[in-house]
Formats: sequence, C-alpha cells, structure tokens
Amino acid sequence: MAEPVRVTMWAGPRGLWRIDSISAFRGESLPGAERLEVIEGATGPVGGGAWALVGFSSNARYTNEEEKARLAALRPELGRADSTRGALIPIRKTAAWWELAQDTRRAIMQETSRHITIGMEYMPAIARRLLHSRDLGEPFDFLTWFEYAPGDSGAFEELVGRLRSTEEWAYVDREVDIRLTRDGVRG
Amino acid sequence: MAEPVRVTMWAGPRGLWRIDSISAFRGESLPGAERLEVIEGATGPVGGGAWALVGFSSNARYTNEEEKARLAALRPELGRADSTRGALIPIRKTAAWWELAQDTRRAIMQETSRHITIGMEYMPAIARRLLHSRDLGEPFDFLTWFEYAPGDSGAFEELVGRLRSTEEWAYVDREVDIRLTRDGVRG
Repeated sequence: MAEPVRVTMWAGPRGLWRIDSISAFRGESLPGAERLEVIEGATGPVGGGAWALVGFSSNARYTNEEEKARLAALRPELGRADSTRGALIPIRKTAAWWELAQDTRRAIMQETSRHITIGMEYMPAIARRLLHSRDLGEPFDFLTWFEYAPGDSGAFEELVGRLRSTEEWAYVDREVDIRLTRDGVRG
Repeated sequence: MAEPVRVTMWAGPRGLWRIDSISAFRGESLPGAERLEVIEGATGPVGGGAWALVGFSSNARYTNEEEKARLAALRPELGRADSTRGALIPIRKTAAWWELAQDTRRAIMQETSRHITIGMEYMPAIARRLLHSRDLGEPFDFLTWFEYAPGDSGAFEELVGRLRSTEEWAYVDREVDIRLTRDGVRG
C-alpha cells in the first residue's frame, strides 16, 4: 500500500490526453477544454486552466481481504503503451449516502450492487484508479479514472452501463463523463 | 452528517487553550508551545506558530448502524462550559495497519479491541472528535480531541489507558499526548 498521493486533474490547452467529449450523465456538466494533464503530488492549487479537480489516493474503504487478494492478482498497471483510451468520471453521492453507516454502505456497494466484483470482471483489459475528493471540499466526492485499449471500448461501455444500473447508483446525484485519447501530441 | 470540515490545530503564543504539557507516548514528540487554537475551515496553511497540524472531519469509517444509533444518543457536544480540560492526541499507525483490508481493520479495532464500545462507556462525560490527517500527507494519521470537566480527569486517564492496552494499539507507531486547559485568558 503506497502512501496517499494528491492528484490534480487539470483541463486546459496542454496535457498528455486529448479531451474527446465531456457529457453530464447526471447533474451539472463541466466546461469544455482541449486537453487534460494528470498532475501527481502538487500540494497547492494549479491555475491557468479551464478547470482543475483534486483528489487523493488512499487505503481501500470497503474491500475485504479476499477481494483485496483477488484484486492484487488481477489489477493492471496504469500507463500501458496500448491503453490509449481514457475516461475521467467524477462522481458525487447524495447526503443520504454519507449518512449511512459503514455496514450499510458496504452492503449496498458490494453485497447488492456487486461493484467490486463487476470491476474485476473487466480486468486486466480495463485499468482503473480511484481518487477521493469529498474530504477536500471539492465539488465531487470521487474522481474515477480508467485506461484501456481502443479494442476494449465496447467492454468499457458495458462496464459503465452495468454500474449505472445498480442500486448504488441511486445515490449518485452528479456524474460527468469525460472521454480521452492519449494521442502522442501532448499539446 | 455534516459536510467535511478542515481543521487546523495551531500551537503558538495565542489561542483559547493553554498547553499544560506535551509528552511523547510513542515516537518523536512535538516542540513546546504556550497555547493552542482550533481553527475551523482555513483552506491553506496557517503560519506564525510553533507548529500546526491539519485534519478533516469525515464520515465514520468503521461504525455500523447499531453503533451509530447508540453514539447519536450518547454523544455529547463539544464546547460545554464546564469542560475546561482538553487533550489533543495525534496518532500515526504503521504501514502494516494500512495494508490491512477493511474487514480486518474493523475486526481488530472493534470486535477485538472494543474501541467504539470503550469510548461510549465514558460518554457523556468525555466528548471526543476525530480528524483524519493521513490523506493530506500530514505527519500523523489522526488528530484525536477530547473535552471533559476537571472532575472527570480520572475517568479520562482510565479511558486513554484502556485504549493503549488494546491489540489495535500495537499498530500505533507515533503518539503525542498534549494536555490543555481552557483558562479564559485566550492569550
């Protein structure tokens, strides 16, 4: 388990990823921008862009030991050469979700909605990273990040669609879907 | 459940609380200072003091629905007029703790060590607040805060002693114990 890292998702004229689309799945969208840079470890605000979202990597909040071992065996690395497609999906959950105790949140998230299990079905094709934002007073609670090869785009749409049809997603009140391509231009 | 709040524990020449003692229970201590101020909601660093520790209030990470309901019924408010004694106890846990999955951490913390249950035994005499620091890259993982009346000092020592003798405390590798009095001077 690595130490927590603060990550800034910076949208503006430069960045490794080209922004192909920004669409609101639920609630308000985000302004348009050309490119996106993932900035690791900046301790303060990063200005000069269209927008910036901040989150931190942390310890897993729901995963049990069995799931953790399976994830460790399956989980792909980020930054694979052929994973040129990306998605940044910032998500906010309702106040009602955060009022639930740990056991109820776990029950909805995994025992009912199978969130962890569904994610593992798409590994190693689809790599993912979860950043936490709520505790920073950010507009979203989570920044979810995905990387995959163009040939796995269909599988990615299926994964996203399955998660959005779960009971857990009834607690999502804002979700923006940003699709990206690592086109080698940098900008 | 309130929104997360960022809190700065600022030690320096001014502040509502007089610092009576700073002692290292485990690992390195903190520099001496005269007074302590609890600053709510500052978004950036607060300078000019001997030291400052930052944490955020957040949703409960381990409490189940039954414990949550019992806590809601028992939990005293902070800032009671007769609670003039305070304690700030910053704690860091080992890398081994953070590598454990959620179910194992819960089992050690509550099923074995009875942390939540022990805390409730001392309510409403002893009020407490938990702030999370690890995800901010701070030197401690948690800032624990306590308030109680002078007549409950013995009970407070007992509470702290019982927690330190649990299995959970084997995972604590740094702990500083700062005792405070709200003396009406402000400084």
